[in-house]
Amino acid sequence: MAARVSIVMGSDSDLPVMAKAAKTLEEFGIGYEMRVISAHRTPDEMIAFGRGARERGIEAVISGAGMAAALPGMLAALTTLPVIGVPIYSRNLGGVDALYAVVQTPPGVPVATVAIDGAVNAALLAVRILAASDAALAEKLEAYMAKATAGVGAKDQHLGEVGWKTYLEEKA
Amino acid sequence: MAARVSIVMGSDSDLPVMAKAAKTLEEFGIGYEMRVISAHRTPDEMIAFGRGARERGIEAVISGAGMAAALPGMLAALTTLPVIGVPIYSRNLGGVDALYAVVQTPPGVPVATVAIDGAVNAALLAVRILAASDAALAEKLEAYMAKATAGVGAKDQHLGEVGWKTYLEEKA
Amino acid sequence: MAARVSIVMGSDSDLPVMAKAAKTLEEFGIGYEMRVISAHRTPDEMIAFGRGARERGIEAVISGAGMAAALPGMLAALTTLPVIGVPIYSRNLGGVDALYAVVQTPPGVPVATVAIDGAVNAALLAVRILAASDAALAEKLEAYMAKATAGVGAKDQHLGEVGWKTYLEEKA
Amino acid sequence: MAARVSIVMGSDSDLPVMAKAAKTLEEFGIGYEMRVISAHRTPDEMIAFGRGARERGIEAVISGAGMAAALPGMLAALTTLPVIGVPIYSRNLGGVDALYAVVQTPPGVPVATVAIDGAVNAALLAVRILAASDAALAEKLEAYMAKATAGVGAKDQHLGEVGWKTYLEEKA
Amino acid sequence: MAARVSIVMGSDSDLPVMAKAAKTLEEFGIGYEMRVISAHRTPDEMIAFGRGARERGIEAVISGAGMAAALPGMLAALTTLPVIGVPIYSRNLGGVDALYAVVQTPPGVPVATVAIDGAVNAALLAVRILAASDAALAEKLEAYMAKATAGVGAKDQHLGEVGWKTYLEEKA
Amino acid sequence: MAARVSIVMGSDSDLPVMAKAAKTLEEFGIGYEMRVISAHRTPDEMIAFGRGARERGIEAVISGAGMAAALPGMLAALTTLPVIGVPIYSRNLGGVDALYAVVQTPPGVPVATVAIDGAVNAALLAVRILAASDAALAEKLEAYMAKATAGVGAKDQHLGEVGWKTYLEEKA
Amino acid sequence: MAARVSIVMGSDSDLPVMAKAAKTLEEFGIGYEMRVISAHRTPDEMIAFGRGARERGIEAVISGAGMAAALPGMLAALTTLPVIGVPIYSRNLGGVDALYAVVQTPPGVPVATVAIDGAVNAALLAVRILAASDAALAEKLEAYMAKATAGVGAKDQHLGEVGWKTYLEEKA
Amino acid sequence: MAARVSIVMGSDSDLPVMAKAAKTLEEFGIGYEMRVISAHRTPDEMIAFGRGARERGIEAVISGAGMAAALPGMLAALTTLPVIGVPIYSRNLGGVDALYAVVQTPPGVPVATVAIDGAVNAALLAVRILAASDAALAEKLEAYMAKATAGVGAKDQHLGEVGWKTYLEEKA
Repeated sequence: MAARVSIVMGSDSDLPVMAKAAKTLEEFGIGYEMRVISAHRTPDEMIAFGRGARERGIEAVISGAGMAAALPGMLAALTTLPVIGVPIYSRNLGGVDALYAVVQTPPGVPVATVAIDGAVNAALLAVRILAASDAALAEKLEAYMAKATAGVGAKDQHLGEVGWKTYLEEKA
Repeated sequence: MAARVSIVMGSDSDLPVMAKAAKTLEEFGIGYEMRVISAHRTPDEMIAFGRGARERGIEAVISGAGMAAALPGMLAALTTLPVIGVPIYSRNLGGVDALYAVVQTPPGVPVATVAIDGAVNAALLAVRILAASDAALAEKLEAYMAKATAGVGAKDQHLGEVGWKTYLEEKA
Repeated sequence: MAARVSIVMGSDSDLPVMAKAAKTLEEFGIGYEMRVISAHRTPDEMIAFGRGARERGIEAVISGAGMAAALPGMLAALTTLPVIGVPIYSRNLGGVDALYAVVQTPPGVPVATVAIDGAVNAALLAVRILAASDAALAEKLEAYMAKATAGVGAKDQHLGEVGWKTYLEEKA
Repeated sequence: MAARVSIVMGSDSDLPVMAKAAKTLEEFGIGYEMRVISAHRTPDEMIAFGRGARERGIEAVISGAGMAAALPGMLAALTTLPVIGVPIYSRNLGGVDALYAVVQTPPGVPVATVAIDGAVNAALLAVRILAASDAALAEKLEAYMAKATAGVGAKDQHLGEVGWKTYLEEKA
Repeated sequence: MAARVSIVMGSDSDLPVMAKAAKTLEEFGIGYEMRVISAHRTPDEMIAFGRGARERGIEAVISGAGMAAALPGMLAALTTLPVIGVPIYSRNLGGVDALYAVVQTPPGVPVATVAIDGAVNAALLAVRILAASDAALAEKLEAYMAKATAGVGAKDQHLGEVGWKTYLEEKA
Repeated sequence: MAARVSIVMGSDSDLPVMAKAAKTLEEFGIGYEMRVISAHRTPDEMIAFGRGARERGIEAVISGAGMAAALPGMLAALTTLPVIGVPIYSRNLGGVDALYAVVQTPPGVPVATVAIDGAVNAALLAVRILAASDAALAEKLEAYMAKATAGVGAKDQHLGEVGWKTYLEEKA
Repeated sequence: MAARVSIVMGSDSDLPVMAKAAKTLEEFGIGYEMRVISAHRTPDEMIAFGRGARERGIEAVISGAGMAAALPGMLAALTTLPVIGVPIYSRNLGGVDALYAVVQTPPGVPVATVAIDGAVNAALLAVRILAASDAALAEKLEAYMAKATAGVGAKDQHLGEVGWKTYLEEKA
Repeated sequence: MAARVSIVMGSDSDLPVMAKAAKTLEEFGIGYEMRVISAHRTPDEMIAFGRGARERGIEAVISGAGMAAALPGMLAALTTLPVIGVPIYSRNLGGVDALYAVVQTPPGVPVATVAIDGAVNAALLAVRILAASDAALAEKLEAYMAKATAGVGAKDQHLGEVGWKTYLEEKA
């Protein structure tokens, strides 16, 4: 299946988080590729990747990075595709450093930033972008959201039926 | 010109910032509409707007809001379109409250967050989303970015020619 | 026992915290209901709940939510009942995101915010609200506070009697 | 008109903010009193005020304070009435010091905290508390919120009619 | 031994930290008392304690408290003795709430604030205050500091002799 | 009048703030000296000052500094006198850098930290330290605090008499 | 005079700050060049600059940038020269975004970060680097620091002579 | 091997972090010394060390410290050598206190600050400084960076070959 979305991370230590993006794209049957490319360690790869992404048929880029997370912004500077940024948590500053470094890009270079470690939402944002011109995919999104709605509804109903004490015991 | 992008703000006090998004879309010749809709004050309007946006032909939503900025996330919950969030600066917490309220949405409800007061980038992100399946628009984006590149290049050259003292005097 | 207070949480992952509110209301013999309703995942439920709460006899709403915690503010927009917000802790930003999202609502839509994870105080605030026009309940509050006073007094006395070394050993 | 709500501030420098609470209560025709009482400078007054408030017929207390804002929490310790806290902005820490000092009270002593400088919402919260058992007041609240809704709607319509350029010129 | 320093904490959960202050005072042979007094739960005790401290012969007060830590500031309002404040760490805001609540007291009510959980320094500050007019105690302080100097010097020398690999192994 | 308190600042740009400490000491009739000594620019002066302070009859040191405010902690390392630290506000980080640098000293080196720009309280803390063994000075402190109490009381009374509208007009 | 230090800024809006670095280098008689190069807008220029800097005889790079300041880290990835980063203040987050983006680079790519807007220190750091193997330059540094020492000393003496009231008047 | 770089830490509790700097210097074959010197506990050692470093042949100083980390700035005030500062993480404020205390030095006293716990980069910065006038060392740096580039490339390739599920299993 040809990749329509590219998931790029600055380090393979980001993989446990970024894998959730891959898994979510799989749920939607969307082809993706996954890359480890570092703005600071493999700048040539980054440039080649960014400049070539559109031509290779990629339609959206998901980029995760931690600390002084330069990758999402740099990719946004190297392609005209929508770039989605995932700030990765790290202990020292709790991911705030990555959040600021991803979201505070200057005018001209937008990065679509999601929550710290928000890889699921990054994938869903890519799906929404693809679905902007794809009615079938939009329907899958509706179904996905309806399922989430139903899930909360079921929990709400169960809590009402069994009460919080039983509910907490069942979860324990 | 039919609106393809909807610019929604929680209060008309956000207009000086959000107008930059409108102006940027105009530069790209993209039809847009502009709305004042408050999650907290006009929830019915918000729901009607969110639920009807795709059917009315809107392809991306730009949503600005300040303080406990609930609007972008609520719109993302009410539509499957990509929603771009602009946290608005306010004196008391410097816009950090809006940034957190916009970007930290839970899994399932993505908001493509840009910088505090980053309305230009919000518009450019919308353009990138439209351009994902529109080669002509992608070329316009290339031209826009090339122009920015040339602008920095010209400043770089001028600084080299006249030196920082003259440059600062000219700017003063 | 008819519910006078409604405890609403955005996710059942908030239940371990919000259960403390339920437990505290039970200590005061106040009827309550408990719901899982998500602003982002079950907006229709939220609207129905908010709009109908007063008619159903609810007198105060306690609402817990984490991250971009939109639920308390949205409920405050949908009802004229007092809404008490509990920001829920999460690792990435330590609950500051939820605190800002709950407390920084715009003029017109007040949320009575308590401390991060402060579900006990949320319940006590609801009790104070009910007790504003209920002398018997006000007396129970006096007794509750007197008990807390006595508890601290007993610890103070014991510490004075056994000294800190023994006291720490007894607690270990 | 007998005071049902007491507005207490730690310093008369808080008056420009806290006056908004008074003004809002006047809009609802609710009797109020206004006091300058400092936790740190007039502790005896604070104790007398807190301990006597309920007996004097006060039904809710609004308390504004800045910096290490001890007043709201101390009042909550001295009365069983609902206490609403307004953290006051100050330049050095932007009001975050007051926000934390007001909202982070320990279990047993709830303060209903509103936004930094959020005196209007403090008053509206008091009105909601009074309206919990007062249908006529609840209707006034409905009308107040409906007016806010209409106000946003009018702005939305005007923006749609004149466009953002004219709108901004009109506001300038 | 008569108490010259009073160590007061808002909750016995602060005891593991505050015990370090007691231990440090013992090293200097200074009599102390230790109290659990809560600004929010035992305000009467607090007032009695604060107002009576100087008469009972206390010369300095050490006060630890967490979250919206009102105790140190309130004690400083109730006595003219020097009050030393120890902000206590808690997970949710990492002790910043307590730090701000302790240090940001308004003009007129000084609290001598030390680091988060800095109970040893609180005790040493009390010793310095007592030693301001006590040459023998000043000498003990010199000796205490000289011992600390020697301790660092010994570690420095040992690291130089064995190298960091061995040093780390020895510590493991 | 012989100096009993030394007021030291890292830069003469701190003087507008630190002058308030001098003025406050004058109100108490306490002799003081005032120095500009920089930890980073005049380390030799700092060492000489710190090591010689006690011998010269100084009983307490007040030290103001901004940014990476090393001066208070270094002075505390160089003398056994009580050192009071005043973090100075600066635009870039709002004084939080100075606050952390002053208050977070390691065990063994206490700095009695007051609020950002809290020079009045620094002086009052020095007075309290001197008054710990000086009954006459303690009485002056009582009077000073009583005056502050009376001042708040007068404002409270005036507000009650004229109402907030007149009060605000009088202040304007 | 051949450039030994290169001063690079992401935008000419950084020039008022970065000019201080140029001025400081001039005081030391060190040749420099000054460039406007944007990581996000002129990435090709950045790469060419970074890769060619050492060959062109540059010995240290000073790089200023604001917001999601990627430039210093990217330059450090493209050259083996020492790269000095200057985080530039901006209103919205007070320069903390730039500080984190500059300083929090991952292992392997060091940036020598100075204070927010700390362009003078950036230049002095470059001078120290050049002076590491240049005794004459080291002497100039000694003289520069001695002059700063003398300047503080003169202020200290003048304050002692005229007192704070006159000193403040003279500065006004 | 004669020491060209001096690694100084404020406490031996910093050794696990600072050892990484030593290890990195060893990889480059650069002689170093390692010291435990505390600004607050061994100020005389600090002064002697700082003032004598250049004469002893040291070319760059790496200084790690936590909390109110005065050591790097003080060393920068005592020598004209480049001083590299490593802010050390601690639980209470997550290392932000140390970061601010190290990086926010006043004009005239530069500290080359790296990331929180960034000891590897501190060493690499020292290598870059030495390599500014040492072509052979510059080549080693090129090789070091090329190795990092290759490492990321290998991971990228492996991820492409085995997919994220296998990759995560292999890492587990």
